[in-house]
Amino acid sequence: MLAEIEPTDTWFTELIARLKQHRSNIDWRVWPEVGDPKEIEIVLAWYPPLGTLQMFPNLKLILSLGAGVDHILQDSSLPPDVPIARLVPNKLALQMADYVMQSVLACKCRVIDYRDLQQLRRWNPLFTPNRYQFIVGVLGLGAMGRIVAQRLSTIGLSVRGWSQSPKEIEGIDCFFGNEQFNAFLSKCCVLVNLLPLTTATKGILSHATFAALPQAAYLINVGRGQHLIEADLLKALESGQLAGAYLDVFNTEPLPREHPFWSHPRIVVTPHVAAVGALDDVVDYIIDAIARIETGSPLKNLVDRNQGY
Amino acid sequence: MLAEIEPTDTWFTELIARLKQHRSNIDWRVWPEVGDPKEIEIVLAWYPPLGTLQMFPNLKLILSLGAGVDHILQDSSLPPDVPIARLVPNKLALQMADYVMQSVLACKCRVIDYRDLQQLRRWNPLFTPNRYQFIVGVLGLGAMGRIVAQRLSTIGLSVRGWSQSPKEIEGIDCFFGNEQFNAFLSKCCVLVNLLPLTTATKGILSHATFAALPQAAYLINVGRGQHLIEADLLKALESGQLAGAYLDVFNTEPLPREHPFWSHPRIVVTPHVAAVGALDDVVDYIIDAIARIETGSPLKNLVDRNQGY
Repeated sequence: MLAEIEPTDTWFTELIARLKQHRSNIDWRVWPEVGDPKEIEIVLAWYPPLGTLQMFPNLKLILSLGAGVDHILQDSSLPPDVPIARLVPNKLALQMADYVMQSVLACKCRVIDYRDLQQLRRWNPLFTPNRYQFIVGVLGLGAMGRIVAQRLSTIGLSVRGWSQSPKEIEGIDCFFGNEQFNAFLSKCCVLVNLLPLTTATKGILSHATFAALPQAAYLINVGRGQHLIEADLLKALESGQLAGAYLDVFNTEPLPREHPFWSHPRIVVTPHVAAVGALDDVVDYIIDAIARIETGSPLKNLVDRNQGY
Repeated sequence: MLAEIEPTDTWFTELIARLKQHRSNIDWRVWPEVGDPKEIEIVLAWYPPLGTLQMFPNLKLILSLGAGVDHILQDSSLPPDVPIARLVPNKLALQMADYVMQSVLACKCRVIDYRDLQQLRRWNPLFTPNRYQFIVGVLGLGAMGRIVAQRLSTIGLSVRGWSQSPKEIEGIDCFFGNEQFNAFLSKCCVLVNLLPLTTATKGILSHATFAALPQAAYLINVGRGQHLIEADLLKALESGQLAGAYLDVFNTEPLPREHPFWSHPRIVVTPHVAAVGALDDVVDYIIDAIARIETGSPLKNLVDRNQGY
């Protein structure tokens, strides 16, 4: 067993404690103290260092602790035949939906502006948009994107979505492919990125994309840091093309202390927690997957390595 | 016609401009420049100064620009026979629901904590509660409270409500009366106040109420400032009994510049905007009410002076 733990990360520390509680008969080992690599049968991986996974010759399963697996697939030394499962239970998507709904409503309710006014001790009611004028665009309509889009629609917002291939989702105005990309963007007051990270989507949150949005739109990035060209975001905020950004993922994580995002007045930073999920849910998922390996039952949420997710 | 306008208040300024656009044949007058009081037939009132409304002998209608009318009824010189209508269209309740959902999800997603961590440039994932453990309590199940409670339930949160008299609302665990008050409070991770202000509810957000909540609960006050005993809130935040408060209403409005709430690290202040509503909706409501007076059609959302709402 393997997991990397940042010393400041109470979430992982607690996760390991809970797993030990649930299955005290399993020998849980935490990277880098993994002992004899031949004894490791299952790896729980978040961002494993490149080359780590080939160290374990008897691996039966790699369990990604996130919904995305790009950080695992990018390892060219990845053992070719070991199945990879990822954390996309429904509950995790709901957790993601809560984060996105909170951020989208914060944009609609102008939370960043009111925070600034509070600091200035200024009582100043601001315009807020009508809910039917307030169009939210979701990039990526996979397992996560679909649930998030539907949740946003449930609370009465106008929602449109974009994906590489055509999709049909009730209540969502669906766009697809490169040709429809700008038409999709042209009405989004908030752009929510939930795309998987692939060669086609890397850097998609760029100057050209921001320029195709309405003036003073908001960005919510809960996909991957590599989707975003960070310098382009800073320029778009400076020019007013974007009014603010809610970022949960970054090119380098943890976000370096000297990074300008930390102190930017229009950027809200969270430490990759949008879909970390409630601990109980993650524990249930891991315990269930291990039981399936033990009993030879079919695994859930297996990754297709060719698709990249 | 009458409205009070704070010079900083762009919302009211814009409202008057829109009304003039819609009905240029009406003589719109803004307090205190109302001309001959005998010519005033309809008053649009937010917080009219005490004694103002008796000045107009030919008044046909008082239109409250808020959902609450306590600030109008407390005027002992209020003309007894003039109907009072209040702003409770469905859209306004939805606007309120957006504000409350945003605040409740902010509590669940620990937005105040992550804001502090961002200021410290600290990357530190925190525990978040499971959605089924995260119980939201709504005080007041009137026109507003009912819609807000249902919306919160729609997004999958566990919702309970409390009102003076028994209510039945699908999906909401309903409590009523003084006897059930503490049982209601005992499980609320977030307490949302949407009560009308009456002699029975004034000061209800007090030390005793906070002490009956679970440790580290959150308060969202979108009712009236007079529901809250401000000193008790500060004590409860200091002791950790409350983890934070989202306040949209205050004992004195605008909130005085020297007030401790402005700079409190666990209090989020907004300037009475939770249900101010989108301008278009408020304009529609006013234009509709005036048309009903002109054509003699029955008025909507009339206030029962004895009930106080």
